[in-house]
Amino acid sequence: MLAVFCVRACSGLAGFRTATRVRSVHSLPGITVAQIDEEVAKLLQLKAQIGGDDGKHQFVLKTAKGTRDYNPKQMAIRERVFNTIISCFKRHGAETIDTPVFELKETLTGKYGEDSKLIYDLKDQGGELLSLRYDLTVPFARYLAMNKITNIKRYHIAKVYRRDNPAMTRGRYREFYQCDFDIAGQYDGMIPDAECLKIVHEILSELDLGDFRIKVNDRRILDGMFAVCGVPDDKFRSICSTVDKLDKMPWEDVKKEMVNEKGLSEEVADRIGEYVSLQGGMDLAERLLQDHRMSQSKQACAGLSDIKLLFSYLQLFQVTDKVVFDLSLARGLDYYTGIIYEAVLTQAGAVPAPAEAQKGAPAEESVSVGSVAGGGRYDGLVGMFDPKGRKVPCVGVSIGIERIFSIMEHKAEVSAEKVRTTEVQVMVASAQKNLLEEKLRLITELWDAGIKAEVMYKKNPKLLSQLQHCEESGIPLVAILGEQELKDGVVKLRVVATREEVDISRADLIAEIRKRTSEA
Amino acid sequence: MLAVFCVRACSGLAGFRTATRVRSVHSLPGITVAQIDEEVAKLLQLKAQIGGDDGKHQFVLKTAKGTRDYNPKQMAIRERVFNTIISCFKRHGAETIDTPVFELKETLTGKYGEDSKLIYDLKDQGGELLSLRYDLTVPFARYLAMNKITNIKRYHIAKVYRRDNPAMTRGRYREFYQCDFDIAGQYDGMIPDAECLKIVHEILSELDLGDFRIKVNDRRILDGMFAVCGVPDDKFRSICSTVDKLDKMPWEDVKKEMVNEKGLSEEVADRIGEYVSLQGGMDLAERLLQDHRMSQSKQACAGLSDIKLLFSYLQLFQVTDKVVFDLSLARGLDYYTGIIYEAVLTQAGAVPAPAEAQKGAPAEESVSVGSVAGGGRYDGLVGMFDPKGRKVPCVGVSIGIERIFSIMEHKAEVSAEKVRTTEVQVMVASAQKNLLEEKLRLITELWDAGIKAEVMYKKNPKLLSQLQHCEESGIPLVAILGEQELKDGVVKLRVVATREEVDISRADLIAEIRKRTSEA
Repeated sequence: MLAVFCVRACSGLAGFRTATRVRSVHSLPGITVAQIDEEVAKLLQLKAQIGGDDGKHQFVLKTAKGTRDYNPKQMAIRERVFNTIISCFKRHGAETIDTPVFELKETLTGKYGEDSKLIYDLKDQGGELLSLRYDLTVPFARYLAMNKITNIKRYHIAKVYRRDNPAMTRGRYREFYQCDFDIAGQYDGMIPDAECLKIVHEILSELDLGDFRIKVNDRRILDGMFAVCGVPDDKFRSICSTVDKLDKMPWEDVKKEMVNEKGLSEEVADRIGEYVSLQGGMDLAERLLQDHRMSQSKQACAGLSDIKLLFSYLQLFQVTDKVVFDLSLARGLDYYTGIIYEAVLTQAGAVPAPAEAQKGAPAEESVSVGSVAGGGRYDGLVGMFDPKGRKVPCVGVSIGIERIFSIMEHKAEVSAEKVRTTEVQVMVASAQKNLLEEKLRLITELWDAGIKAEVMYKKNPKLLSQLQHCEESGIPLVAILGEQELKDGVVKLRVVATREEVDISRADLIAEIRKRTSEA
Repeated sequence: MLAVFCVRACSGLAGFRTATRVRSVHSLPGITVAQIDEEVAKLLQLKAQIGGDDGKHQFVLKTAKGTRDYNPKQMAIRERVFNTIISCFKRHGAETIDTPVFELKETLTGKYGEDSKLIYDLKDQGGELLSLRYDLTVPFARYLAMNKITNIKRYHIAKVYRRDNPAMTRGRYREFYQCDFDIAGQYDGMIPDAECLKIVHEILSELDLGDFRIKVNDRRILDGMFAVCGVPDDKFRSICSTVDKLDKMPWEDVKKEMVNEKGLSEEVADRIGEYVSLQGGMDLAERLLQDHRMSQSKQACAGLSDIKLLFSYLQLFQVTDKVVFDLSLARGLDYYTGIIYEAVLTQAGAVPAPAEAQKGAPAEESVSVGSVAGGGRYDGLVGMFDPKGRKVPCVGVSIGIERIFSIMEHKAEVSAEKVRTTEVQVMVASAQKNLLEEKLRLITELWDAGIKAEVMYKKNPKLLSQLQHCEESGIPLVAILGEQELKDGVVKLRVVATREEVDISRADLIAEIRKRTSEA
């Protein structure tokens, strides 16, 4: 029966007519709504296959799902943020590298656990099987192993790709920048680790995003804690993921997941609960080293001693004001082997409310504060690529640049500040007709002297429209040519903001423009 | 018979044993070598399916075919080249935008003619069909149409992807940078076009790549010329591609292709041959406007008048020394509608010989000079994306940045100049043991003052190894701490190049480092 129905409906395809038939069929006895729904789904699929409405191809003018263009204003903000971050990386003596946007598929295989399903694969067009990079850490490890590099301090800023559920108003895209700083090499304990935290502190302070806190923990402390609390070895990673949810869920819900879904006893969960509520500094590490349970784990003790050492360096770097040792910090990625950290903004106001939240969605959304940097030590990853398994210890940090862009864009929007998208210093304008040639001659002089200058691409633009263009795009000066000025060998230099005008001799013009724009 | 053979060989798979059987089978009567070849191919395919040699998976540590990593030295050179180019774009008042690395597949469809086969598609993982961008021009046109932008002067520097045959020693990759500057908008004729050529002139002069020439032509002149020479309308594009080969082939071969492959008569080909041998400046355009044949084509006359106008602006921009009106310039892309241009380096020595050529390949390879920039006017492309077909006239130029990187890398290699990969100004070092804390305290002062500084990640490094590191990485200054210096409240500042050492009081150190490194 259903098969017949399907064929009938198919033959009557194309938009409205199909819909009518479906409705008339609805009244037939012996067909349930669920069955019809199912058939409709089949029909819609068939429709999609033959090319949408009326079989006519409608071209869709859009970017791919979860991606966006950056317009000039966004680019200006992006450039400013990058400059701050790159200056910091360079101040700390980092080199930079770049790797291809795609890797051999097998390079990425087995590095991301469950998240592997989010990797974008390229179509097999003959040749190698390729995937878009998922982060910059795995390509970095591949680069080190491939080139047998055992020491490097490098940064890498590039886009990565994840077929995740996009939440673009909150700065979560399928194509997004990562901004990584890593130190690879066998060094004395905690010195590079402390420098990574110093860098996070410098960057977040300089970007002026509001108050922040950097949480620190150590994978060995987590594992040791799980062991002494009685978690079975094979559940460490899984319980770790549950602990990781503590920044989004209250303890009671986390505990429920541990007991009901992950099969821990109430008692074990409660023991974990006690530990993960602890926060402090070097003193907390000292106290836990004396803790009757924790002190039984060699692993935990090694982690705690390192936290102590780390804090002593952080004191010298003068950044302990923002750093907190937090036993609830877990971080998802499998490859961390030692210290882990995450920076969060603590001022609700600093984070823009997502558009939906503003329009009536739950209020929590608008005060959610987010992680803006994270990282840790991963001593085993490079060894996974080395044919002989030789390890290169690494520690690094990734700046959550997309969220920072969102915050900065929001800030620029609500502030009166006008974001300039060009750096033009002077507009070469004319007060009368037929001066194009003279203007081109003058602008050539300016360009050749390194002055940033523009001229309108019209033979005879109106002076007013030339001045308006300056106001709109924030150009501070106008060099105006007229018959009289040409006769006198001068240029009328106009300051856009004050409308003040002075005649400057041609010979002095370049120096005058430089003087006036270097002050700005 | 063959089927049996196949099954037998298959059962004896795995390396050497199969080979033996194949050889023993070879002597059997009734089997030809061709048949065996065919079976071997089948076996190899089967082998590939079950996972290579011995079924054991050999991990390959490499980047995808046709791609490369950039190491820190290459990145330093790349940064320098980008800075020069971006400065020029900014001097001319350009904004910048960015677009996603992949587009909807249909956005790219029908834009590249035959080259479409070189587009990388993403795997269909459910959802939209996506392709990696092939150039920056089509995404730019899509961006303009999507955002209804009718006026913009923008640059865009980003990687594009082509499944082409890579020739990496000659700077031809499957992933490579494009570096585009375009002016969109309805303006008075030839002013933006002339600025594009001015920009090419500035960039190539500043990069100091050796002498260069910018060839200019116009699609309307080519089409008009084909018409008056007697080429059938439907062969314009095809003959255009043949003309485009004149920079790699002598006229005789090009003519042969026109006559033998494209079916032109000798007479028509010879007429074309006369024109495409012409080179000149504004005078040539004037002469051709009087030419009894050319003057019959309205199109050609429009193009020739514009060339005249263009040259008049180029004179004002003072760049005619390098620009030549060359009727043999054709350029491959379909979307050009007016002026086209291409810059070539004319000094053979400026281009590095590819590695193979140096090792005995034909000598021509090592003297080949290449196109380093190209572009033109494309007034119809944006309209292809607009639902109502509204046109936005555009003209632009693309800098062949990968070839320029190759040249710069080669130059750096053969010159004595040492490319620094970091910008570190001072190394904080110690002359005795147990001074790590003092060093971290000092470097914190330096970092917080914006000084680029490094310290070794060792508790007690040897002074010699600290000094060696400075020599190797070009760090100009060392701030040395010792017991005595700490007591005296000074730092010993050592100039790496001269080995001169002076004691500087802690209070004056930052100013002293600034003074000494700003001179460098």
